[in-house]
Amino acid sequence: MSGRTSLRIFLLLMVLGVWLGFAACAGAQTLGGDYVGELAGPFDTPATAQFSHVQLKAEGDALSGSWGAYALSGSLAGGRVTLTLRDAEGKTAGTLNGTLTDRTFSGTGTLMPARRAGGGAPTAGEVKWTLNRLPAAPAAPRTWNYEPTSFYGYYSATEPPVLHIFPGDTVNTRTLDAAGRDARVRHTGGDANVGPFYVEGALPGDTLVVKIVKLRTNKPTARQGSRFNQHAVTQAYAVAAKYDANFNGEWTLDPDHNLATLHASDGLPHLTVPMKTMLGCVSVAPPGEEQYRGTDLGPFGGNLDYNYVVQGTTLYFPVFHPGALLGMGDVHAAMGDGEVVGTGLETSADVSFTVDVVRGGATSQVRAETPDYLIAFGVSGSVPESIQLATAQLAEWIKKDYKLNDSEVAILFGAALQYDVTELVDPRFNVAAKVPRSVLAGMK
Amino acid sequence: MSGRTSLRIFLLLMVLGVWLGFAACAGAQTLGGDYVGELAGPFDTPATAQFSHVQLKAEGDALSGSWGAYALSGSLAGGRVTLTLRDAEGKTAGTLNGTLTDRTFSGTGTLMPARRAGGGAPTAGEVKWTLNRLPAAPAAPRTWNYEPTSFYGYYSATEPPVLHIFPGDTVNTRTLDAAGRDARVRHTGGDANVGPFYVEGALPGDTLVVKIVKLRTNKPTARQGSRFNQHAVTQAYAVAAKYDANFNGEWTLDPDHNLATLHASDGLPHLTVPMKTMLGCVSVAPPGEEQYRGTDLGPFGGNLDYNYVVQGTTLYFPVFHPGALLGMGDVHAAMGDGEVVGTGLETSADVSFTVDVVRGGATSQVRAETPDYLIAFGVSGSVPESIQLATAQLAEWIKKDYKLNDSEVAILFGAALQYDVTELVDPRFNVAAKVPRSVLAGMK
Repeated sequence: MSGRTSLRIFLLLMVLGVWLGFAACAGAQTLGGDYVGELAGPFDTPATAQFSHVQLKAEGDALSGSWGAYALSGSLAGGRVTLTLRDAEGKTAGTLNGTLTDRTFSGTGTLMPARRAGGGAPTAGEVKWTLNRLPAAPAAPRTWNYEPTSFYGYYSATEPPVLHIFPGDTVNTRTLDAAGRDARVRHTGGDANVGPFYVEGALPGDTLVVKIVKLRTNKPTARQGSRFNQHAVTQAYAVAAKYDANFNGEWTLDPDHNLATLHASDGLPHLTVPMKTMLGCVSVAPPGEEQYRGTDLGPFGGNLDYNYVVQGTTLYFPVFHPGALLGMGDVHAAMGDGEVVGTGLETSADVSFTVDVVRGGATSQVRAETPDYLIAFGVSGSVPESIQLATAQLAEWIKKDYKLNDSEVAILFGAALQYDVTELVDPRFNVAAKVPRSVLAGMK
Repeated sequence: MSGRTSLRIFLLLMVLGVWLGFAACAGAQTLGGDYVGELAGPFDTPATAQFSHVQLKAEGDALSGSWGAYALSGSLAGGRVTLTLRDAEGKTAGTLNGTLTDRTFSGTGTLMPARRAGGGAPTAGEVKWTLNRLPAAPAAPRTWNYEPTSFYGYYSATEPPVLHIFPGDTVNTRTLDAAGRDARVRHTGGDANVGPFYVEGALPGDTLVVKIVKLRTNKPTARQGSRFNQHAVTQAYAVAAKYDANFNGEWTLDPDHNLATLHASDGLPHLTVPMKTMLGCVSVAPPGEEQYRGTDLGPFGGNLDYNYVVQGTTLYFPVFHPGALLGMGDVHAAMGDGEVVGTGLETSADVSFTVDVVRGGATSQVRAETPDYLIAFGVSGSVPESIQLATAQLAEWIKKDYKLNDSEVAILFGAALQYDVTELVDPRFNVAAKVPRSVLAGMK
């Protein structure tokens, strides 16, 4: 080998080395950022896998950051990745090995169970894992005009999303009435919902924020039931009642003047009530593999039937699945408390809503804010339990946000709490606990 | 005997006869009018005897009229009276014999039981009976300034009346707070009430109407509890709550500006709520020999703890005893729904009320009217039952007053009914069902 040849090889190797170094370094740096981490045991399905926000920092070969509540450390070398997850006490909770492919990491490993069901020392279980980079939000929020091509009648994480949207985005769309009347499109079951809308960046444990920007009926009539549900009246009343099987429960809607007028009957020749157009159903997908009919309700929302879920109201949902899977429907032009005849003034509407995501902060059930109130829902199998759940959730929320102790929130509620009995007749019960913003105005 | 003597005796007898005839006739005529009829079996006490409105007409010896739901016929001769009571089908229900003494009739007789408990033919039972003339109302309603000399802590028909008043009368008086603070006078138990006021002409089956003309706090402070009652929050919340044993639950009241301000704490340095001065307790005596503590509630009212029992509200009580025996107390300067900390802002007040009596019309529980709502209460052992009782009572009321059929009242309630959860924490539960007057405005 000549001196010049040696020099040329030396220079070539040096250039190659520098290039490789830069490439490795640049590659590692762009790996840093926000990911969705998925951990799945041998028997998990996509609905039961554990999804977490993962933040990755890369310096040279070294990886650090967080995976949900775990601290993360590890290394990346030659496309092979090794990660260690540690709990809050610094104990090793899991070890993950895998590969990097086109900015997606995946592999297998072991993880300690979060809790032990029985006695004895906990043993680590096998997991498959994936890290997918969170899609980047567009530079500015977008507005979507979504014309439904389908509606869905079951609350379930298996319902395929119809649209992927980002926090800050607004959607203009429309709903069917509870019976699916005026449907130009297929749907299944009662209380068919539009959606689900997949909200990027929403993961289990997060809070989905949904502001109802506009809600306006889009047909001239509504239909209502005219028999009391068994939960609304005494048995004696129910037995004695003589209902008219041909009673005409149709209302004429006048959204320009905000009035609904009942078809005339002998005793009610001209009954007119103010319209208060509300979304009977609004939901995220329920936890795990749970499935419910459209008429049902739960901590995920659903058929909450609250007559303050109106234009201007903001809802806060605990997120149970990636994307949250937001849907809505079952518009009522008005409804008394408790939905005592099993329906409101059932109709359809044009709806516009804006979404946002708060990292973490998921509460046990749905919450809401109106211009006048902070509101917590309690959905359960009985009204007394719903009262307790709603009060406790509202108390936790206000204690946290306004930095109150237990005595302070109790005395505040004793003086100013209000309850609304929202849903008495569907499979579960819903009570709303609320405090006026006016009494909170001087606080914080 | 001479002719002249015979003539004189003849004339004397004639004059005497005419005079006796006139006297009997005049006596019989003034016997006509309104009476209180009392029927008591061998084991009845004054609290369980049956009291009824009796209307008596007298023509010569003949008596006619009505005794409660019975038709009455009979005769009066030589101070001896015989009465027959007949039911709606014309069957003899009872036979009463007795005497007239100073415009009070009394005696014994037999009466068929209203219902048979077992099989077989019903047999008439022995009764004692009395007819007392209803005191005549004064020419014009009166206003009483009643300074309490005692308060009572048990709802019971045995509590002696402190004042006899007539329909149309107004009473100005004052109440203690729930703990009897500021008491210058003796009382027994919690939630001591002022009264009872005996309202002339009110009998079982009637409706006592009580309008709260004025209600104004009369001391500068109120005290409130600062721990949630078990019915208001979940067990988990209750277990985790850490209450400050020394928390100061005192509020300063400013009735001129209608504001209550809490003693400052770290988290609530200046909590102010609007005052909404309400009567926590307002009641008639409970049925029969029932007795309840002042904190209890029932179809007779009592500790209803409804935050719309305020100045301007009118209450309708079913009457269970002669005179109704109206009492009130337990004023709150404000209170959230459900009394979730076991108290409102407990204080005392000056109160003015006007009474009236509606013959009959007693409903199953208390009702109310505010300037904005028609309201029915449902007091029971559970919130769901209270909801059913309140809804059914309101429906019966509105069906009757507005001549609606079952379908019409159902659709009206489905569109416009509202519930207030008023009392969660005392021995029984209270829910108010209400409809806005505005939707009833065009009806009737």
